[in-house]
Amino acid sequence: MFDLKQYLAEKTALVNKALAHALPAANTRPAALHRAMRYSVMAGGKRLRPILCLAAAEAAGGNGTQALRPALALELLHTYTLIHDDLPCMDDDVLRRGKPTCHVAFGEANALLAGDALLTLAFEWLAGTIPPSPYASNRLILELARAAGSQGVVGGQVEDLSSEGKKPNRAAVNYIHLHKTADLIRAAVLIGGICGGASRSELKALAQYGEKSGLAFQITDDILNETSSRQKLGKAAGSDRKRGKMTYPAVYGLDTSRKMARRLAGNAVRALRPLKGDKQALAALVDFIVTRKL
Amino acid sequence: MFDLKQYLAEKTALVNKALAHALPAANTRPAALHRAMRYSVMAGGKRLRPILCLAAAEAAGGNGTQALRPALALELLHTYTLIHDDLPCMDDDVLRRGKPTCHVAFGEANALLAGDALLTLAFEWLAGTIPPSPYASNRLILELARAAGSQGVVGGQVEDLSSEGKKPNRAAVNYIHLHKTADLIRAAVLIGGICGGASRSELKALAQYGEKSGLAFQITDDILNETSSRQKLGKAAGSDRKRGKMTYPAVYGLDTSRKMARRLAGNAVRALRPLKGDKQALAALVDFIVTRKL
Repeated sequence: MFDLKQYLAEKTALVNKALAHALPAANTRPAALHRAMRYSVMAGGKRLRPILCLAAAEAAGGNGTQALRPALALELLHTYTLIHDDLPCMDDDVLRRGKPTCHVAFGEANALLAGDALLTLAFEWLAGTIPPSPYASNRLILELARAAGSQGVVGGQVEDLSSEGKKPNRAAVNYIHLHKTADLIRAAVLIGGICGGASRSELKALAQYGEKSGLAFQITDDILNETSSRQKLGKAAGSDRKRGKMTYPAVYGLDTSRKMARRLAGNAVRALRPLKGDKQALAALVDFIVTRKL
Repeated sequence: MFDLKQYLAEKTALVNKALAHALPAANTRPAALHRAMRYSVMAGGKRLRPILCLAAAEAAGGNGTQALRPALALELLHTYTLIHDDLPCMDDDVLRRGKPTCHVAFGEANALLAGDALLTLAFEWLAGTIPPSPYASNRLILELARAAGSQGVVGGQVEDLSSEGKKPNRAAVNYIHLHKTADLIRAAVLIGGICGGASRSELKALAQYGEKSGLAFQITDDILNETSSRQKLGKAAGSDRKRGKMTYPAVYGLDTSRKMARRLAGNAVRALRPLKGDKQALAALVDFIVTRKL
């Protein structure tokens, strides 16, 4: 029986240790910037994207080692999106993971620039891994850049902000969740798979898995925002509803949203069939994604 | 006799046409984002970094064609820094190149996200060029990421902001100008040189040229901010002094600053000696950098 709790504990420790080691030291000039970068990256979090990346490498028959550096880059990318999303001109959040957000702790300009630096550092770290044949040497950069760019995460964020207060709308919420969240999760498993030596058909399977589990993740996030407590979330609960955010519960209601998340999780697990490596972790992770309480 | 005016006109037209063609169309979803990206990139500007990149490729004996895509990526990177620098939490500028800044035209959130998307797209475009042997396939990405990151442009920007209102200080202004400005200009000529097939000794020469001319460029910018008019600059003149910015004129006075810029320009030209290709443009460009009126 696969022990996900043990797996998460081991991988989280691995990722945290490697991040703490690889990030510029807090006293590197300019110290305010490097302190802000480390503060946000080391604030905790589930490390879901790097762990999915490592698990995808294993599912492709590789070992996690080839995918570690790209996995860390994914966490930098994710952290930059959180810092910028929390800024006053965006979601204007003061709490993240139970701690003051980056701009509250370091000022708005430093937070903006820490986000910029983390996005840049993600590409620097990613460039440290050349994918195995038959993949082109620039493939990892292209996967991340497309997932993170104007028709990926950034595009999703723009639509998320501009849809605030608008009438709940299926097409809009689907666009937002696909791009704001699922694109990066799909990139995480694709990058892991490529590093682990996935065949082209295995890569297709991982893309399916990533998209379904990414959507399931964001729907579950929406549900938790509606139903959980500030204490559990580490940030204000019910904030989506207060802002008139375009969420799955707003469009479909809580019950249907829960069913949709579970259905997507099932589809994600079924998508794993073509993979020839050890896919226990990927299967367990998508179950975790839809049953987690924070 | 080398005709710089003609050279600038040709290369500017080439870069502008290629940018207009390569950027996502303004109606690409989300349209507000892509309009903001195009607005800022196509707002004009000297296209100095892409032109230096193309000229460096020629100076290394290559032709500009190999360096065109990376040259465009450099302009995206530069534009992202301008958009973010102009934001209210940074320099809070309302005019850029005689037009409303991006956040004035599109709102703060869209401007922030347009900057993020341009930074990301710069890496996507750069990944479209694999450098010639003996350079590693990830070399262009690494050059740009290091120049743009927390110990490059972003680091320089943090020190620039945190030194506002402080006592003029040689070490501080040197750090700021080296990183805020010269790092990206050095990367531009290094990337061009690599694409043009520069030898390792030619690359060293280009690094020298880039650093000297980059410093000369920022010193000249400081001087123009102090002495030019709003009409010529396309933005408020004298704004650096008003904000207590750490500039060369503030530290050394105008006369010494002018002399230093000219001395750096001379050193930049002398650094070109080892280059075996056509270096007329690079030599003329550094002269342009210190004699320009805007």
